[in-house]
Amino acid sequence: MISRRSFLSLAGASALAFPATAWARQAPRSAVNAARLRNRLERLSTHGRPPGGTFADGVTRVAYSVADLTARAFMIDEIKSADIVPRIDAAGNIFARYGGQPDQPAILFGSHIDSVPGGGNFDGDLGTFAALEVIQAVQAAKIQTRHPLEMVLWAHEESTAFGIGTAASRIVAGDLKAGDMDRVWNGMTRGNAIRRIAGNPDQIETAVRGKGAWHSYLELHIEQGGTLDRAGTPIGIVEGIVGIHRYDVVIEGMANHAGTTPMGERQDALVAASALTLAVRDLARARQGQQVGTVGRLSVEPNSPNVIPGRAMLSVEFRDLSEAVLRELGEALRARAAAIAGETRTAITLELATTNPPAPAHSGVQEAIGQAAQAIGLPSRKLPSGAGHDAQMIAALCPMGMIFVPSVGGISHSPRELTSWDDCARGANTLLGAVLAIDGRGSV
Amino acid sequence: MISRRSFLSLAGASALAFPATAWARQAPRSAVNAARLRNRLERLSTHGRPPGGTFADGVTRVAYSVADLTARAFMIDEIKSADIVPRIDAAGNIFARYGGQPDQPAILFGSHIDSVPGGGNFDGDLGTFAALEVIQAVQAAKIQTRHPLEMVLWAHEESTAFGIGTAASRIVAGDLKAGDMDRVWNGMTRGNAIRRIAGNPDQIETAVRGKGAWHSYLELHIEQGGTLDRAGTPIGIVEGIVGIHRYDVVIEGMANHAGTTPMGERQDALVAASALTLAVRDLARARQGQQVGTVGRLSVEPNSPNVIPGRAMLSVEFRDLSEAVLRELGEALRARAAAIAGETRTAITLELATTNPPAPAHSGVQEAIGQAAQAIGLPSRKLPSGAGHDAQMIAALCPMGMIFVPSVGGISHSPRELTSWDDCARGANTLLGAVLAIDGRGSV
Repeated sequence: MISRRSFLSLAGASALAFPATAWARQAPRSAVNAARLRNRLERLSTHGRPPGGTFADGVTRVAYSVADLTARAFMIDEIKSADIVPRIDAAGNIFARYGGQPDQPAILFGSHIDSVPGGGNFDGDLGTFAALEVIQAVQAAKIQTRHPLEMVLWAHEESTAFGIGTAASRIVAGDLKAGDMDRVWNGMTRGNAIRRIAGNPDQIETAVRGKGAWHSYLELHIEQGGTLDRAGTPIGIVEGIVGIHRYDVVIEGMANHAGTTPMGERQDALVAASALTLAVRDLARARQGQQVGTVGRLSVEPNSPNVIPGRAMLSVEFRDLSEAVLRELGEALRARAAAIAGETRTAITLELATTNPPAPAHSGVQEAIGQAAQAIGLPSRKLPSGAGHDAQMIAALCPMGMIFVPSVGGISHSPRELTSWDDCARGANTLLGAVLAIDGRGSV
Repeated sequence: MISRRSFLSLAGASALAFPATAWARQAPRSAVNAARLRNRLERLSTHGRPPGGTFADGVTRVAYSVADLTARAFMIDEIKSADIVPRIDAAGNIFARYGGQPDQPAILFGSHIDSVPGGGNFDGDLGTFAALEVIQAVQAAKIQTRHPLEMVLWAHEESTAFGIGTAASRIVAGDLKAGDMDRVWNGMTRGNAIRRIAGNPDQIETAVRGKGAWHSYLELHIEQGGTLDRAGTPIGIVEGIVGIHRYDVVIEGMANHAGTTPMGERQDALVAASALTLAVRDLARARQGQQVGTVGRLSVEPNSPNVIPGRAMLSVEFRDLSEAVLRELGEALRARAAAIAGETRTAITLELATTNPPAPAHSGVQEAIGQAAQAIGLPSRKLPSGAGHDAQMIAALCPMGMIFVPSVGGISHSPRELTSWDDCARGANTLLGAVLAIDGRGSV
């Protein structure tokens, strides 16, 4: 057995050629098996690859699809090959635990492998397989940790299936309502979807875990934005995951003949929707901070070139780390909508359809991530996560932290999603170091 | 035989109770059979009526549909009942001619009976059946006209079928291209659609008529706007039919994650589309005149609440009586689009997709309509037609004029479309008087 400290400074067995940047030259070789990590991600990419495609064509691996089933089987085989025992909970999440003292809560880390349709090879995949690498690196180095180390593959993170994001970790965090299992998508109930992946919808409540179920939770993920790539910084320490307030907006005007209705007599629902769309942008821009506002969905009725739109339906989304800012943006939006309705002689209704509370990352976990990066010579910077993650749900149960690695050009949810293999290895090694640092401290 | 002048002052056989307004009290009883006109329009309304509905539920009588076929058969029966002979041209238009000297060109009048989906009982229907009433009134009064009187039912006016407006009169005016008959809509070629209504697509060119084919053309139609209804004026004299410049606009931005892309780095196609939509309204409002500008169709991709729109497609339509104004509006739109593209970092392409030239009504026909209304004590006012009509096409062949009657609340293309039976009769009598006035003068 060697100490955690000496392990970090000795570095692991596999070679990783760093580019010749100032910070890279001083970095030791990584402790995870970077070649195996890459090999596994490349093999994973065949599950859901478009017919006749290559790695560059990305994957469509929607939760509960055949591609998802075969990819899960691949992961289970890899876990078994590491001589640890996979366990599937009632929601279909795959856990595997290694070492630690039996009276100690486990340190949990992992991510997901389901994708959006036409997605890439890194979103979720990296964090999931890096989790297995962390356990294998600890095994290889014969480190005995105080806390059991537990990896997790969350069964369903993308919001494609059943229209629910972070659906599987949501159950674990206790967000479970009567009737959830009867929800239908693509002709399949959610209960039967969970049966397909060896979950147990009849005892779904057994998947719910209480506060303190784990010592802490860490997730390595690609940034999905362009901040790290532009800055040339290899490691991002997530300060928190933004909250989301999403509004469904309906605008009722009056459909009428586009030729016979004078400008002054129109009640044009699309003119009102356009003014509101610009208002959303202006509100998000008008204050200091990193809040964003988006109208991503808009439909118009009757949607004919020669008819004044009588009805428009649109989505408005605000995201920020501060719940107070989200509320203020919502109030400002309502005021603007009322003014626009008056000017355009339309009726505008805003319904707050879904809210995801902001999830701040635990300061101790952030600190451990920063130390781990520094120990292997990697610059890091703090940043918020604008995207939702399973970590957002698990933050309700234990201290949480996330590690980001650069997305080339900030692109994600696209076959063009790309993180260099070097950055993948750097992220995995930072995860390894952070887990061991937290274990060594005993508390966060 | 009686003179046209005494006919107008003697008035016809059927009684029509006018409301006790100042102008109505001095009006003589009408010359057309108002009760029969109403009865025919009520019977026509059963062709295409929604199952279980009433007159108030309007009609869906799209050109070439079963409802259109049975409605045409009804009209043919009514024409035959008047002892005149219907003739169907190669485009499926129904003509019927009465009286006049064989060496004189006919005075043509009529409209259409096809409707938009979910349309009303007056758009087109009134002018078509009023045309038959005019011939029957002349027959009943034993008037011998110099010019043959010819009624017409244009086979396809609404732009629903094959996406073409005034499609049948367009052929007659010579707008016919190779391949037109092969165009497919609802699994049917246009040629086969025309066969269904007893037209002859193999000799479609025989439907084309040259300049001077008719002495003149008149069309009675509901206004479809609210000008006459608001003013309480029973008769509108159309000054001309507006031209239409329609643009197809494509905006290319960059689809990206709505959470991870800062406001300053977005290339939001919907933000650009919104700015352009407001610009269209502002341009149409910014100058004196009756021009209108409309964005009636807009679609967004990928149209997901959590994705910044990467692409937007929209239609822009300007309408005005002046071609020069239409061109200026188009130039101003291009300038605004270029500015918006710069501000939003998007690429905006505008394509002038279709142009309908403005069609001024002939001053002599306008004068005849005004005289006819005055002769039966009906106030009238001049106004443009913001909607397209078959008259717009036939204006290329001979002097053209249109009579408008009030649309209650300006509503059309809706089951709620309504013109009072009294106003229907007033319009038909004004058409009758105008036809006879033009015939009496010999020239317009």
